[in-house]
Amino acid sequence: MHTKLFIPGPVDVSQRSYQAMVQGLVSHRSLEFEEIYRTVQSGLQKIFESKDPVFLITSSAWGALEGSLKNTCRKKALCCTSGAFSEKWYEVALANGIAADALKHDWGTPIDPNRVEEALKTGDYDAITIVHSETSTGTYNPVKEIMEVVKQFPEVISLVDTVSSFSGAPTPKDAWGVDVIVTGVQKALALPPGLALASVSNRALERAKAVPHRGYYFDFLELNQKHANNTTVTTPAIALIYALKDKVEEIESEGLKTRFERHARLNKRVHDWVEKQGLSLFPEKKYAAKTLSCIRNTRNIDLPAFNQALKDEFSFCIDGGYGKLKGKTLRISNMGNETEASMQALLDAMDVLIERFA
Amino acid sequence: MHTKLFIPGPVDVSQRSYQAMVQGLVSHRSLEFEEIYRTVQSGLQKIFESKDPVFLITSSAWGALEGSLKNTCRKKALCCTSGAFSEKWYEVALANGIAADALKHDWGTPIDPNRVEEALKTGDYDAITIVHSETSTGTYNPVKEIMEVVKQFPEVISLVDTVSSFSGAPTPKDAWGVDVIVTGVQKALALPPGLALASVSNRALERAKAVPHRGYYFDFLELNQKHANNTTVTTPAIALIYALKDKVEEIESEGLKTRFERHARLNKRVHDWVEKQGLSLFPEKKYAAKTLSCIRNTRNIDLPAFNQALKDEFSFCIDGGYGKLKGKTLRISNMGNETEASMQALLDAMDVLIERFA
Repeated sequence: MHTKLFIPGPVDVSQRSYQAMVQGLVSHRSLEFEEIYRTVQSGLQKIFESKDPVFLITSSAWGALEGSLKNTCRKKALCCTSGAFSEKWYEVALANGIAADALKHDWGTPIDPNRVEEALKTGDYDAITIVHSETSTGTYNPVKEIMEVVKQFPEVISLVDTVSSFSGAPTPKDAWGVDVIVTGVQKALALPPGLALASVSNRALERAKAVPHRGYYFDFLELNQKHANNTTVTTPAIALIYALKDKVEEIESEGLKTRFERHARLNKRVHDWVEKQGLSLFPEKKYAAKTLSCIRNTRNIDLPAFNQALKDEFSFCIDGGYGKLKGKTLRISNMGNETEASMQALLDAMDVLIERFA
Repeated sequence: MHTKLFIPGPVDVSQRSYQAMVQGLVSHRSLEFEEIYRTVQSGLQKIFESKDPVFLITSSAWGALEGSLKNTCRKKALCCTSGAFSEKWYEVALANGIAADALKHDWGTPIDPNRVEEALKTGDYDAITIVHSETSTGTYNPVKEIMEVVKQFPEVISLVDTVSSFSGAPTPKDAWGVDVIVTGVQKALALPPGLALASVSNRALERAKAVPHRGYYFDFLELNQKHANNTTVTTPAIALIYALKDKVEEIESEGLKTRFERHARLNKRVHDWVEKQGLSLFPEKKYAAKTLSCIRNTRNIDLPAFNQALKDEFSFCIDGGYGKLKGKTLRISNMGNETEASMQALLDAMDVLIERFA
């Protein structure tokens, strides 16, 4: 029996999405593809809440996150860190020979706009990395407040990771004033992994023109040139783009606001369960993610055994903590196609098992 | 009605492959995934005819081709060019700030081992790029003969692109003595695009250790570390990996030799048609690719109109030439799942139309 994934990505894919994937291929240099590209584009712009072009990049989100730094940082990057993925972005800068400083925060605490301001005032930086939804700790950073600071420093190009929030919670790019948002398709979009999306401002494209050795595969200027022709630089993940077209149409039908409310409601249901079970969230509730929950294992649940039983007896899979939080936290996704009934089925199963393993 | 692709990639995907793709996802950090990874690995090693690890990289082949240079070239790359894709590889080196020289050959002519020897004797180079199957001209380069030269220069890491030959014609990596072979899955493997494969020698990994700023996403050492645990660095194109597992099993059933013979036989059928129609191959017959055919448009066929009619009346799609050969050549793929009957159906349709448009 298929195990249903409630891990924070990849999540379960609907039969509808699978059906959209397996249509016969077209050439990515055909009029048919251009038409699909246009539809996907306008749908994605609505979800990004931005007029900027969205590049479809055949890679994990990490490829595009790395690329965003390579395209925009000439001087030094300020990397706001408060969890595994934001710390990794800092390491990725260094792996590329890009000068960078980590503005370190404790895991699960929100990035402090005042500290960002203090750092940017040095004038050392021309790019900043901010993870909106830190998947390792289930924390949303206050991007709006951080961006109010960043916007005072016009030299600084802002790069934001919305991998585990995009389309499940508001990420209003133009209202925030963010230059580059990168996300993936295997989280709240609930498609199989293999495609990254990058919404890129004109400011970021202008910066790229001044950055040497941007490379080829993730080069914003190459991507933008092909984007103007409604296609991609290299042969893209066409089957996933079919599914993405279907998904943006599905989201249009559901309504973006309704979709955000559904995710928030299902997330609250998990939070209520946490309280009922005498557990607590890893981050302060105010900053808790709306698309997944990171829960402190305060009842010393034997997580490997718990997860194995959840899988064997109920065919559900949750996550037992990431990186240094492994064993110390549970992570539960409410992203994608979930409903009250599907979330409740998981919570009911966990009710049964927690008594056995706590 | 679905248009069947006979372009040189992507090619048509079988229902069997589609069915393999749409199984429910597993986490790429699960034992189930490790098991799939192992099966794929041993199947691919047989097709590469190499004991070296094969990295599964979620990108177009171009990402891995770019990465192969970034991982192995410290000094200067010698890029053997004779068509659009080999020339692009040279440009990609420059886009990364990698010093490189193009060893230019006329389009459609084979790379000359003597010229390679002459160039390498300068001692300027520590990496060489060779395209086995130049898709833009339908030409196979004599990799065996070139490698006999390259092997005399132990400092030089050899990088070979087999994108449009892999699994359709022999590419015996260890017998050739090649360090890195990069390919994709949307050509002779006949899967939807979105996954690159890189077989990487220990020599190449040792070189990578000495190359700074290799980046993250295509870093061979990161890939190799996760490979040791039967998984990938970032969330991979899991659905494509399912289909790849099924494909290597299918190839095992068909037999690699039988598969090569089938491709050669279907390719000869196209060549016979070329002769019958009073056309000629773009390259010298001795160097003509076995997986696709690039045909000179010596009868001045109105190719856009011809292709449109082929599509409208027969639901087939061939290619009307790439780059500077657009309009001057036709390209026909015989890669993937084709049979005598399926190729003949295409050739019969072209027989009908050529009289109308020549």
